[in-house]
This record gives sequence, structure tokens and C-alpha cells, in this order.
Amino acid sequence: MAQIENLEKLARLIRYYILVSTTEAGSGHPTSSLSATDLLAGLMFGGTFRFDADEPGHPNNDRLIFSKGHASPLFYSLWAAAGKVSEEELMTYRKFGSPLEGHTTIAFRYVEASTGSLGQGLSIGLGTALNAKYIDKLPYRTYVLLGDSEMAEGSQWEAIQLAAHYQLDNLVGILDVNRLGQRGETMYGHDLEAYEKRIAAFGWETMVIDGHNMDEILGAYEKAASVKKKPVMVIARTIKGKGVSMVEDKNGWHGKTLDREQLALALDELGEIDRTVRGVISKPEDVRPVEREPRAAVEEIAYEAGKSLATRKAYGNALKRIFPRFPNMVVLDAEVSNSTYSQIFQGGHPERFFEMYIAEQNMAGMALGLHSRGKLPFVSTFAAFLSRAFDQIRMSQYSDANIKFCGSHAGVSIGEDGPSQMGLEDIAMFRSVTNAVVLYPSDAVSTEKLVEEAARHKGMVYIRTTRMATPILYNSSENFPIGGSKVVRQSEKDVIAVAAAGVTLHEALAAYEELKKEGIGIRVIDLYSIKPVDTATLRKAGGVTNAIIVVEDHHPEGGIGEAVRSALADYDIPVHSLAVTKIPRSGKPAELLDFEEISGNAIVTKVKELI
Amino acid sequence: MAQIENLEKLARLIRYYILVSTTEAGSGHPTSSLSATDLLAGLMFGGTFRFDADEPGHPNNDRLIFSKGHASPLFYSLWAAAGKVSEEELMTYRKFGSPLEGHTTIAFRYVEASTGSLGQGLSIGLGTALNAKYIDKLPYRTYVLLGDSEMAEGSQWEAIQLAAHYQLDNLVGILDVNRLGQRGETMYGHDLEAYEKRIAAFGWETMVIDGHNMDEILGAYEKAASVKKKPVMVIARTIKGKGVSMVEDKNGWHGKTLDREQLALALDELGEIDRTVRGVISKPEDVRPVEREPRAAVEEIAYEAGKSLATRKAYGNALKRIFPRFPNMVVLDAEVSNSTYSQIFQGGHPERFFEMYIAEQNMAGMALGLHSRGKLPFVSTFAAFLSRAFDQIRMSQYSDANIKFCGSHAGVSIGEDGPSQMGLEDIAMFRSVTNAVVLYPSDAVSTEKLVEEAARHKGMVYIRTTRMATPILYNSSENFPIGGSKVVRQSEKDVIAVAAAGVTLHEALAAYEELKKEGIGIRVIDLYSIKPVDTATLRKAGGVTNAIIVVEDHHPEGGIGEAVRSALADYDIPVHSLAVTKIPRSGKPAELLDFEEISGNAIVTKVKELI
Repeated sequence: MAQIENLEKLARLIRYYILVSTTEAGSGHPTSSLSATDLLAGLMFGGTFRFDADEPGHPNNDRLIFSKGHASPLFYSLWAAAGKVSEEELMTYRKFGSPLEGHTTIAFRYVEASTGSLGQGLSIGLGTALNAKYIDKLPYRTYVLLGDSEMAEGSQWEAIQLAAHYQLDNLVGILDVNRLGQRGETMYGHDLEAYEKRIAAFGWETMVIDGHNMDEILGAYEKAASVKKKPVMVIARTIKGKGVSMVEDKNGWHGKTLDREQLALALDELGEIDRTVRGVISKPEDVRPVEREPRAAVEEIAYEAGKSLATRKAYGNALKRIFPRFPNMVVLDAEVSNSTYSQIFQGGHPERFFEMYIAEQNMAGMALGLHSRGKLPFVSTFAAFLSRAFDQIRMSQYSDANIKFCGSHAGVSIGEDGPSQMGLEDIAMFRSVTNAVVLYPSDAVSTEKLVEEAARHKGMVYIRTTRMATPILYNSSENFPIGGSKVVRQSEKDVIAVAAAGVTLHEALAAYEELKKEGIGIRVIDLYSIKPVDTATLRKAGGVTNAIIVVEDHHPEGGIGEAVRSALADYDIPVHSLAVTKIPRSGKPAELLDFEEISGNAIVTKVKELI
Repeated sequence: MAQIENLEKLARLIRYYILVSTTEAGSGHPTSSLSATDLLAGLMFGGTFRFDADEPGHPNNDRLIFSKGHASPLFYSLWAAAGKVSEEELMTYRKFGSPLEGHTTIAFRYVEASTGSLGQGLSIGLGTALNAKYIDKLPYRTYVLLGDSEMAEGSQWEAIQLAAHYQLDNLVGILDVNRLGQRGETMYGHDLEAYEKRIAAFGWETMVIDGHNMDEILGAYEKAASVKKKPVMVIARTIKGKGVSMVEDKNGWHGKTLDREQLALALDELGEIDRTVRGVISKPEDVRPVEREPRAAVEEIAYEAGKSLATRKAYGNALKRIFPRFPNMVVLDAEVSNSTYSQIFQGGHPERFFEMYIAEQNMAGMALGLHSRGKLPFVSTFAAFLSRAFDQIRMSQYSDANIKFCGSHAGVSIGEDGPSQMGLEDIAMFRSVTNAVVLYPSDAVSTEKLVEEAARHKGMVYIRTTRMATPILYNSSENFPIGGSKVVRQSEKDVIAVAAAGVTLHEALAAYEELKKEGIGIRVIDLYSIKPVDTATLRKAGGVTNAIIVVEDHHPEGGIGEAVRSALADYDIPVHSLAVTKIPRSGKPAELLDFEEISGNAIVTKVKELI
């Protein structure tokens, strides 16, 4: 068959590119690329894959995600074989400034999302597939290249179970079973049945093929395209290093390149390469999603000053309220929507709410996939449990992700449920992510406003909410820009400034009243924007008082106190920290705030100690 | 049968305790406790479970872990029914200071490890089971109570696959399929076959039973005890709220207690309770493990000054070297032992090395289980990928865990592999954990010494290592106490102090030489202990210079710079930060250090800017 011959010719060219580019770079993963070369050449140039290479952002392009991001030489070589990367550019692989990075990143124009931390690509693909089926309602398909080693990651099984649950028949996993991990054999080696049994048990359609037989490869993709109501896993037996006998199926060749001499031998073995042949990719049908028009006018905020409402509830209200203004919004929650109150959004816009069950890693990965398809994901669970998805959150910074995370039940003030449910490291976690914005509202009005600010901001935003109801402090007409703060109490002679956010702001207000009785004036600052933080206001407060006390329902390390210290590093303003330093217990919120010395009482004591 | 009748009587008593203690507390999870009551009454008092309640630490006691930690009322009530918790103590449930916390914690003497973040208990149980089979070689069994909702967590499937891999036939999961999660039905509802198919596909022995039929329950445990070479999952169909018809199988009753009136009705329905009946637990065989004697004398460290070696390699050397001195050591690695160099330990002591494959969450959970059985786990992978286990690491602080984590490939200095592989948030992550120690050696000698300090320290320690080889700076006779630092360069007139650790220390030394040529003296401090940090030395350095520059291959937030600022908060010492603030790329290590302005050049520039 001419098609098979042509594909094999292309595969040979791709192998050539993989070998020369990695030897030139002196590092990289040629053997992990070679095992999947036939699988991917067959996919891209065999007719199944539909992609307009001149419009990578075409909403109906099939999506291709390399979960095994270290097979980047294969990815770049595929696009070289498609005529979209020059040989010259290919030789910049891994060089500083090149878009052809060591693991696939969005610096390269055909990458959907940056990968390289294993076990994340399938979740990203779930996001793009869910978007196609339920949101954009487009016929594009999503293909995810998976390594066998990474199947040990639990996140894969989170994705596998959820894809079946949502009957994503537009999702095809390509499992490259090359037997060898980084340091030796994988758990199942070449036992393909082990994978098939497990994946099929989760409700996927599975096919086991020889990953170096082009006929079987094409047949599998063709069949995969016709499966209904189930995602498909093509499980391929492959040889690591296939095509270069000196490294084929050999341990010790992971992440290792050939030297010049070895390269010469390998190229000899490859045989004649036609460097002029180019693969042709099928074009997608030119259909585009029906876009909802953003509507400027949305419901007004109407909270009564003095009444109380939990910020987590205001978060739910806000999501529902602002949706007409941000019609790309999608809301995900990990089986706690009645605690985070994302269920309020679900009630209003059920078609844009997706239940993720208790699987936070996959939830964060899916959000990245949705983001890559132009959606605006709001992702919520308990603040404590977002720690589960730290690796996915960390990776999102490398995809310029426009994702909003909301963590509820922050701090010891949740009370009786005890430490396992208390978010006490979440601010540190999100602050440590480049360009992530961290917001921490203290009342319903500021929550509503900040959720909207978050939606408007391009980039990652974390919103921290509180379990208990807190009094409404602000008028609905007030604004809460990112990077701002509010001076909520001040006198002519403030001796100390207290910066607080969330529940501790209310403790600071209690301290203010208490101290006022004794004639001691303190300035109280609502530091609702933790990152970026309002340096100007803090500096000013520090200038007119003796010191700043930062009070936070979070551990001191990486928290608000350290954010303030860093902001004021260039000024001689003493910054004192009241934070959670003891292992918390079950108990009443007020008992715990006292125990950790972040309560109104503790603030009063600290102020008196300092003056 | 008298036994069945007696067990049913005990189950009734336990239900009574669950109901009265949660109503008294006013919060908690009675319905999630009631669904598992028969399963657990049958286990503890049915003869299978062997536990010496007077010696909870008996090394041959069977272990019982509540992965669904919110079923704590059941756990405490079981021990009340065993006569080990008084009715008075039971009524302190969730009160401040009571060991009977909202989710099971080690404050209660029969708890193996604190739980409450779902999806972690099975990994902990894997640790105790692995210990029994391969380390202590004892016949005790491990039982883990699992909720159906938490089966969505990928960590469960990591544990499931590894338990089968290690043929842990001493591990029994008890899956309480009560159909309802927190906010509604689980993914599979009462489809028990869905669970059975999936779990069996992973190589477990499975049994499906009626979780309220005592006969079936006892039969399952008996059978489970005789299964060989496979872990066992007892999959039980249960009713949430079983025994109280007003809440049975009803949505909206998760984490909700009965009020006094409802309680009265429920108790009526329960019928007569014999509050004098007490359950009897079988005693374990009094066998104890053969303990290895610690040996004081170990090999000497022998590194040649001036030569270079990667700290990650020194980590491997140290593990192997100190083992005779710390014979409780166990080393775990997530399929990268040839990168972290834990393989050096494996080479020397293969019986104490366990391959965890690429499944970091389960690895961290298993470490906690091993810790609970008196072992000293050293856990390694890339620093970046430890973020995957943040929730397990976070939870470990609530179990007083004596676990040592090592993250290799820290920072942008790894070079070409690109950002996905760079640990840039790991210091922030570990600093945010209460009482965790964070160490960051810069050469082979200090690594060796710090690994030993870590082993000696009781508590969680994080050791950060570097990919590239770095010159050996220290003499083997030097000591590196936790909380210390080293002034490695100083002159009579230092204008600036540069505090650095790991790779940036070498950059600081390069800057020192460069500046010296121009007659500018700087003090260079090796801040190998990030937490606790050496405040005294920093303060002294700040006192005799104009400022401190902290240089770190990590994001600024939560990193070394903020640690130093917090340490010096009470002193007027300017602390400047050079850290990773731009999204890194692939490139040569030196290019990246320059790009991020944390190189010797950047330090020179900063010093000149400040003087």
C-alpha cells in the first residue's frame, strides 16, 4: 500500500530528526521518542488527525497532547515532517531562547499545554474533550500520548474514571508501552493485558496493537473514531529506542543521547532518508462554536450592612451573578459544592457546572484543558485539599493559565472538624507560583467584587474563603481592585497598624473596639489582596504608626506576614506576625483563634506589648 | 448463633454511642459512622482482629486505619464498646482539648496515623503491611476502612496497584459502599460490581457482601485471612445512617447530627441498649521483631577538597553509609533512584529499599505507615514532584511524622530539561509545614553531615539537593548542626553579607572573588539550614555590613529570602532578595542563573548597586 509506504518513509524521516536534534543538543530523550514514532506518524499523517496547521487555534482542530512531555523531540520532529518546523529551527532544540524546550511547553506554537510532569496530560485532554462534547459542541477529537511509566500516577486513574463517567467518546489515549521507565522496567513491563484489563474495567474501549505496525496503527485510529459513548485507549506494544539497535529495548538509555559516533552508526542503520518528503495533515471541518455574547448588565449586589454571611456563600452567589458577563465561565468542584457553595452556580447554570468527584489533581488538569480551549474555569474545593493538586497548579504557571481557584474552609476558624480540614498552607502554596494572584475577602461584598476582579484578570487567581458567617462590612458600591487594600479603621493618632484579611480582619475590628475603650488607637487594614500586596498603604501605615502587626489564620511561613515583610523590605518598618504556630485541635472557632493567638484578645495583648 | 447475637448487641450499643456523642457535640458525621458500624463491630469483636488494648504499641497488634477519618464517632464508640473509652470521655467528642477530635488524630491513643483528608489511609496501611511482610516479618494484619466517595482519589489506585505488586496478603481493605457522598450520589452509587471489577483488575482478591449482615461480614474476614499473595478488598453494600430510618439512605444528611428531639426518636427506634455489654478483642501472638542493633562506628567521609560531586550523589552515599547507625532506615523512591541517587543505598542495602514507581502520593502515605511502625523513612524524588504529595506531607505534620524527604534537581540550575522538572516551590512548601526542618547543602561533605543530622532529628526534615556537580568546600571534620550556618568568606571590612545555599553559594563565592579584585569585601554565609535559620549569625552579619543579600534558586515567595526577613524582623537590617522571578526556559545552567539574576554576575551587580 502506497499510504503505508509513505508513512513509513515519514517515520524514518522523523526518526532521523529525533536523532540528529538530540545529539546536537547533547541531552534529551531520543529513545522515549523513537518508541512512539510510528504511533504518532500514523496518527498525524494517516488521515485520522484533522488540524489546520496554519491556524493552530482553530476551534475545531483535533487536539494532540504529549502527556509524556519528554518525548518532545518526537513532537518537534513531527511538525518538521509536516513542514512547519525548519531543520534549522529543529537544531535549536533545548538551546536557551528556543521555543523547542526540553519538555513540550507552550513556547512552541503547536503545544496545547505545557507538560513534563508525568500523569497530567490525560486530565488536560479530558478538559479539551469535555469542552468539545458539552460546551462548544464541536466534532474535534483529543488524542493524548501516554507513557507506560506514568500509568503509576493516580491522576491517570482519576482521569480514566471521569472520562468514562462523562462518556467522552471523543477522547483517545495512545499508550506507548515501551516497557522501560527511567531506571528500569515498569511495574507491568510488556504485559499489555495488565493495562488492558485495568483500563477496560473502568469502562474504556481498549485495543491492543503492535505499535510499530503501521497497518495495525491506522486500523486502531479508524476504529477509535467510531466508538460511541466511551473513551478509547490504544495500547501499543513498542520498543524503546526502536530503529536504533544499539539502544533498542535496553535499560540505561533513558534521557540519554547518542554521541556523534553512535549517531553515525544509527543513521547508517536507518538507511536512506528522504529529507524532502512532507506529511500532509487532514483539515478539520470549518465549524466554530456558537459564542455566547457577554452581557454587561448583571444583577446588582444587595447585601445588608451588619448582617452576616459566609464569604464562601458569597463566592457561590458571585459565580452565578457574573456569569452573563463572563459567558466563558465553567465551574468545577470536587464533590463539596454544598460546602464551597459552587452549587449556587450549578443551580443557576447547570450546563456549565461539572462535578469532578473527589479527585483534585484531575480537576486542576481538566481546568487547564478547558483554559486551553478558551474557557474560564473556576475550580473549588476546601483550601486544604487544593494541596492535592499542587503539581498541576505548579505546571499551570507554564501554560499562562487563566484559571481561578477557590479554597474554602481556610484556617483554624473552621473549628470542630479539626486540622485535616483546615487550609493552613494554601497562601504559601499559591504565593509561590509565579504571577498567581492571591485574594482573601473578609465579607460578602468584597467577595462578590473580588470574584469579578478575578474573572476579569488574565492569569491564575486564588480566592480564599471562610467557613463561618462574617458580618458585612462594605457598601455594595465600593471597589476592590487587585493589589489594593482598605483602611477600615483609623484615628488621628494610631499607635499600631493591624493588617489582616478574612476572619482575622473581624478579630482586628474587635481589638480596635477593645483598645479604643482604653484610649489606644489602632489602624486596621483589610489586606484582601495578598499578592500583589498594597505596598503603598502599608508603607504609609508604617510611617505614621510604630509598627505593623499582621494577623493571619495560616502558618507564618509563606503567609501574609512574610508577604508584608517582603513588600516593606526597603523600609524600616517593624512587621510583627500573629499566625498559626501550634498544631491545631478540634474545638470552637473562638477557642482555636485564642489558642493560636490570632484572636481579638491576642491582638490586644500584642498591641499593648508593643506600645 | 450466640456470637452473632452478641455482635448485633454490641453494634446496637455502638450506634447508641455514635448518636449520643454526635448530638452532644452538635457536629460530626453520624450517618457515615452508622453505615460502617456492623462492618467494624464484626471486625473488632468477631475474633479476626487481634489487638492488645493494654499495649497499643505492641508490634504484633493488627492495625486498623480509618481512611474515612470522618467516621471518627464510630472509631471512638468501638473503643468505648471495648471498655477502653468511658461514656464520660465519649461525650467530650470534638470539644477543645479532647483527644476525641472531629477526624481521627493521634491525640487518641488507638489511632495509627491522623486521617481526615480522604484517600490517604490505604497508603498508610500499605506502609504498615509492607513493614509486617518485608521488614519486621510479623504476622500482624492491617485493616483499612475506606469510604466509597474517596475511591475517586487517584492515590487510592496508586495504593491498590502497589499493594498487588508487593503481594501484600496481610492487607485488607473494607470498602463501605453507602452510596452517598457529601453532596449527593457517588459516581457508582450502589453498583458494587463497578468497584469489584476495577479492584479485581488490579490483582486484588475481592468479596462483595451485605455490610449489615453479620454472618456475611464474619465470613468475609475469615476468608480474607486465608488469601495468599494478594491483598483483599471486602466490598460491602451499606446504608448511610443505617439504624435510624429518618436519615437512612437519604441525601442531605452528610456531616449532620440529630437534634435532641430527633435523637430521642432515633434511640426509641434502636430499642433496648445494654450499656454494660463489652466487646472482647482477641489478643495477638506475643512475637516481636528482631531489632538490628545500631552500630556507632560507620565508614568515614572521604571527599577531596576542590573536587566536585553533586549533592544528590552525596545524599545517596550518605544513606548507604549511615544505615548501620540508624538500622530503622527504609528508603523509598519514585522511579528516579538513578537521579536522586537513592540507588546507592539500594545497592548496599537492597532489603531496605522499596521501589514506589511514579506515584508520589502513595509513597508519602506509605512513609507515614512505616513511621507509625517505628521505621525511619527516607523518601526521594525530584523536588518538583514532591509537590504531588503535598496533601500527604501536610497531613504528616498531624502524626508527628519522623519522615525525611529529599528533593533533587532543585531550581533552574538543572538546565535543559526545562521548568517542568525544576523544583522552585519546594522550600515554600516544606517551610509552611509546622515543625518541618528544611536543609539545603551546597557540597558533598555538608550533604553527608546533614543527612545524618536529619536521621538523628525527631521530626519531618526536607533535604534539597542539586543536579550538577559542585566543588567540595568543607573538611570532613566540620559539623553542620540543624539551625546553624557557616561563614565561608569574610574580611575585616565586609560591606555586604551574601546569604546563599546550594548552588547559589557557589555563585556567591564567584562574586566574592570578582569583588575582591576590585577591593570590595563581602561576607558569604552558607545558609544550609533554612528552617530553623541561624538568626544569630545573620544578625551579626547584618550588624557589621550594610545589608544582607539572599540569593536563592527558588521563587522569592516562601523561600530563603522570606525566611531571613522573618528571622530578622525585630532588627533593622535591610534584606535584599535575588530569586527566580521569571518563567524559566530550557538552557544551560549558567545561562539560566544569569537569566534569573541569581548568578555570580548578578550578585556582583547587586552588591555594587547597594554600596
